[in-house]
Amino acid sequence: MDTIGWIGLGIMGAPMARNLLTTGYEVVAWNRSAERLDAAVAGGAQRAASPADVASRSDVVIACVTASADLEAVATGPGGAIEGIREGSVFVDMSTISPAVTREVAAKFEERGVAMLDAPISGGEQGAIDGTLSIMAGGPAEALERVRPAFEVMGSTITHCGPSGSGQTVKLCNQIAVSVNNLAMAEALVFCQRSGVDPSTMLSAITQGAAGSWQLSNLGPKVVARDFAPGFKVGLQQKDLRLALEAADGLRTPLVGVSLVHQLFAAVERAHGADVGTQALVRAIEGLAGAEVGEANEDG
Amino acid sequence: MDTIGWIGLGIMGAPMARNLLTTGYEVVAWNRSAERLDAAVAGGAQRAASPADVASRSDVVIACVTASADLEAVATGPGGAIEGIREGSVFVDMSTISPAVTREVAAKFEERGVAMLDAPISGGEQGAIDGTLSIMAGGPAEALERVRPAFEVMGSTITHCGPSGSGQTVKLCNQIAVSVNNLAMAEALVFCQRSGVDPSTMLSAITQGAAGSWQLSNLGPKVVARDFAPGFKVGLQQKDLRLALEAADGLRTPLVGVSLVHQLFAAVERAHGADVGTQALVRAIEGLAGAEVGEANEDG
Repeated sequence: MDTIGWIGLGIMGAPMARNLLTTGYEVVAWNRSAERLDAAVAGGAQRAASPADVASRSDVVIACVTASADLEAVATGPGGAIEGIREGSVFVDMSTISPAVTREVAAKFEERGVAMLDAPISGGEQGAIDGTLSIMAGGPAEALERVRPAFEVMGSTITHCGPSGSGQTVKLCNQIAVSVNNLAMAEALVFCQRSGVDPSTMLSAITQGAAGSWQLSNLGPKVVARDFAPGFKVGLQQKDLRLALEAADGLRTPLVGVSLVHQLFAAVERAHGADVGTQALVRAIEGLAGAEVGEANEDG
Repeated sequence: MDTIGWIGLGIMGAPMARNLLTTGYEVVAWNRSAERLDAAVAGGAQRAASPADVASRSDVVIACVTASADLEAVATGPGGAIEGIREGSVFVDMSTISPAVTREVAAKFEERGVAMLDAPISGGEQGAIDGTLSIMAGGPAEALERVRPAFEVMGSTITHCGPSGSGQTVKLCNQIAVSVNNLAMAEALVFCQRSGVDPSTMLSAITQGAAGSWQLSNLGPKVVARDFAPGFKVGLQQKDLRLALEAADGLRTPLVGVSLVHQLFAAVERAHGADVGTQALVRAIEGLAGAEVGEANEDG
């Protein structure tokens, strides 16, 4: 069984590493903040002093951090994994970052004789805890086969999307669809409310048909209940939409819907902060309409 | 068993009336064009000379036409159903029309002692043939109970949405969600293509998760196969989006996403006509991006 190096014990990384430990993997871990590393060590992980230290003591190194700059820091920055990594091992990035940055970092590892996989995830904190994530992998097929047993501990759907960067591309496609479907839900709910019709009745009438979506089924009832606790936070959604818009801009490919949603989320962040759940997109549409979903109807 | 009057034997109305005949209902029918009426008569319907004639010979009168003006013509225009309808009967409009026009027409029937239901449908031609439509009903609950046995022949989901007009409101919510979900699919597919990743691989990776929707599952593979045959036609989708935007405008409720989709469909209609399927929305995004989903990838 490979010894797994783990870099980044955040809301996703911590339960993913825990599942590897529970399955019997040796895990050598590092995290930027000490408390979360202490917790992982208490759970059986071995403490490392830096990403380079992680890499020097592992067969496969997995990073799960937030943004492109974070990944560059732990991968190729001073004290980064590349300084300790062994030839013939695999570096896996499960963060959601720029496809272009991914290809740059992968090229640097390749020079050292190390294959890199981009393998961003979807499925949220619950999917990470349950080991049912969807893993979208880009990079050499042999490297994916090498780490597949570990991926199968963390996820239930593993897709090889193509060469380096293509896992990130597919993850951004996922975020494009998620966020524009979210807008669809928000406009249907606010129009319904302003028309004087009960939004719950509307949801039950349309959710199973051609208007249906995961967003409508899972977030629609939360909006009606005014529950804006995060499954996925607006601040992280905005980070991912910036990546999509940046990549699309580089390809001179206008994403007019995503761009609109990104602007509306800016209003949500200003008024309600970055830590509310993405279903708070509806609050931007409510602001335009001057009415909240779930209020007593006064006109329509 | 009530004798059912039927007005409008189009792509939806004809199979719905046929299902009533097959179940044993007497159906008195009229249609604007003679051939479709001839076909219904050959299938067992009784021929009427006008909507007023239909109404004078029926217990319940059902209209299934295209637009608000068509419904006004057959309901309250010269020779319309209101001229023949019996006190105590029910007038049912299964077309998708304006909620405001619905309330006006319902008020006129009410003056004659006739209850009106707005009961627009979703589920497409196949749902009409199979009797599995979703029926969204607005109007008096007693009137819905009166016609429920007939509705159960035509549909599998019957929702009482509230007072007159609320069935139309819920149908417009359905079209809002459908069309903005369609945009989500189009942008994900075109971004994927321009990034050099296989769109089918992307669809299989994201369709079952948080990005999933009926549109993505059912229309995504058609786009990849360049199949633009209509399930639902762009021209009819545009009619429904006009209704939604008009109703929203009356409520001073901006629908920024729907408005964007409506504009993009205008480009599709200009270039490809009103009779292509709604999945052709992707062609507007492809036009902006200068690439077609499913082409050999040249860059990314």
